[in-house]
Amino acid sequence: MVDLNAFIAEVASKINNSVTGIKGTPQELYEASLHIFRAGGKRLRPALVYASGRAFGADEDALLAFATGVELFHNFTLIHDDIMDNDDYRRGVPTVHKVYGIPTAILSGDLLFSLALHIPLSYCSTKMKSSRCIDASRKLAWASVTVAEGQALDMMFESMKEVSEEQYFEMIYKKTAALIEASVYIGGVLGKAEESELKLLSSYGKNLGLAFQIVDDILGIYGKEEETGKPVYSDIREGKKTLLIIKALNIATGEDKELIEDVLGKKNLEKEKYSEVADLIEKLGVLQYAKSKAEGFVADALEDLKNLEGKCDTEYLTLLKDMAYVVVKRRK
Amino acid sequence: MVDLNAFIAEVASKINNSVTGIKGTPQELYEASLHIFRAGGKRLRPALVYASGRAFGADEDALLAFATGVELFHNFTLIHDDIMDNDDYRRGVPTVHKVYGIPTAILSGDLLFSLALHIPLSYCSTKMKSSRCIDASRKLAWASVTVAEGQALDMMFESMKEVSEEQYFEMIYKKTAALIEASVYIGGVLGKAEESELKLLSSYGKNLGLAFQIVDDILGIYGKEEETGKPVYSDIREGKKTLLIIKALNIATGEDKELIEDVLGKKNLEKEKYSEVADLIEKLGVLQYAKSKAEGFVADALEDLKNLEGKCDTEYLTLLKDMAYVVVKRRK
Repeated sequence: MVDLNAFIAEVASKINNSVTGIKGTPQELYEASLHIFRAGGKRLRPALVYASGRAFGADEDALLAFATGVELFHNFTLIHDDIMDNDDYRRGVPTVHKVYGIPTAILSGDLLFSLALHIPLSYCSTKMKSSRCIDASRKLAWASVTVAEGQALDMMFESMKEVSEEQYFEMIYKKTAALIEASVYIGGVLGKAEESELKLLSSYGKNLGLAFQIVDDILGIYGKEEETGKPVYSDIREGKKTLLIIKALNIATGEDKELIEDVLGKKNLEKEKYSEVADLIEKLGVLQYAKSKAEGFVADALEDLKNLEGKCDTEYLTLLKDMAYVVVKRRK
Repeated sequence: MVDLNAFIAEVASKINNSVTGIKGTPQELYEASLHIFRAGGKRLRPALVYASGRAFGADEDALLAFATGVELFHNFTLIHDDIMDNDDYRRGVPTVHKVYGIPTAILSGDLLFSLALHIPLSYCSTKMKSSRCIDASRKLAWASVTVAEGQALDMMFESMKEVSEEQYFEMIYKKTAALIEASVYIGGVLGKAEESELKLLSSYGKNLGLAFQIVDDILGIYGKEEETGKPVYSDIREGKKTLLIIKALNIATGEDKELIEDVLGKKNLEKEKYSEVADLIEKLGVLQYAKSKAEGFVADALEDLKNLEGKCDTEYLTLLKDMAYVVVKRRK
């Protein structure tokens, strides 16, 4: 049996080594690009590439190239999102644009994005000139288009008074789940997964990603600053249209509704005001609702894996299962 | 004989049709992404992809996918560069961040970059699952890494008192010539060009790109606003370390040197001050020096093409020759 924590530590170590080896000129740009990467991170996406890849017998060098690409791509989105959202902290350290200024932060993200595709494609062009390598690269590029669309929707929603749950789910699918779906797909396609299996892997990744984002929404209100690395109540402060806020606005009435509307998106109120809204959301049953939704997606993800039993390596299939549970239990 | 202007018009029309067909959600993001593309542009890079591709018998659909990718990538760099340089106008219209704000402009660039790789890779994954398709994609991703490095150097140079010509040439190779080199290489590799021929195509593209940037530097001081779409003297105003300014600082002495140092990088002086510097640069023989440099690179580019004679379609080889001449003669 592969232990989940040992596995994640193994992948993280591979990725950290791979990324630390990235060098270029000017050095200052590379430093800025890796600022957030060095501050930590779960390396969830690389772990998914590896788990799914090993389940289907993929080449280890191929997995390293693509897992590195996926993680760099993820870090690129964090750097640019922080500029767009004007966030000051990430992973407990000041964001890239706070340290290096906006122009360098934009460029750092652009460089990571470039590397995210250059590293896998360089691997493909020297080692594995197959259609599977092309398809893995295509899926990563597809995710990048989709994530940009998701971030645009997320920003648009901030200034919209009403956002439906359907719109919300489209947004988080694009913004968060697409890259997680791509990570799992890429592992499988670099291995021997066939089309029907790739569909199940994609579905697992999508469900996992949706659950992941809902848990993120919960942590954006109820997470502890020392665990998440982000200021507490940040989503309320920024008026983010998260599942909790959409649902709360939807079912609250009278004074309750007024309170939420008054506080949402106001950046400089006293802490008590935000905590009042957080308490209200819980009282309205919305926290519980969000938790059940996340658990529902995890159940769907597990169902996808069940359909893969007997078609791939059991040990790594079990790891994918374990990772689904971890997503709902995480506190950061 | 293929007429150069007819050829460029043909390519431009193909690219315009291809790009106009790009759709996605949210529509606002796609609108912002295509704002600068719609304002015009020479479509020089797609023309190079086509000319070199046809010279080596590449598939027309492959050329369209990659030429579109190269042009979208180029437009992405323009959008982000305009934010970093705080430029208000491009191609005679307000820049994306002036119209849509910085967050949407960042994201528009990210979307174009994503599409720039997704369109070629989608083509490869359905139509041409060959190592040549992988190599063309790799070269585009390589150019994207290199262009980011070049832009970083360009920004660093603005705050450096002394920049050598050697440093300047490294910067413009990365910032400008690498993508032009990639465009020519991509055409050839999508066709039947062999390694020695790809080297010559790359060298031609590199030389052409270096000449192109020097001419851009000349137009950045001596270009007419109604032709370039950019405010006159903009490079002096922004303190850009262009070949002209580096060389002028290098050879000017006494009052001349003081005048250049006083005016360079100051944004709000009277127009006469900038024109005084422009006149001085010409008087010092630096304008002539820059012109000769550009012509030297064009001569090298033509030499590369000479070595390709008999190895590919003569008509398109002649077009590549014509394009080299156009680069030094252009006024916008």
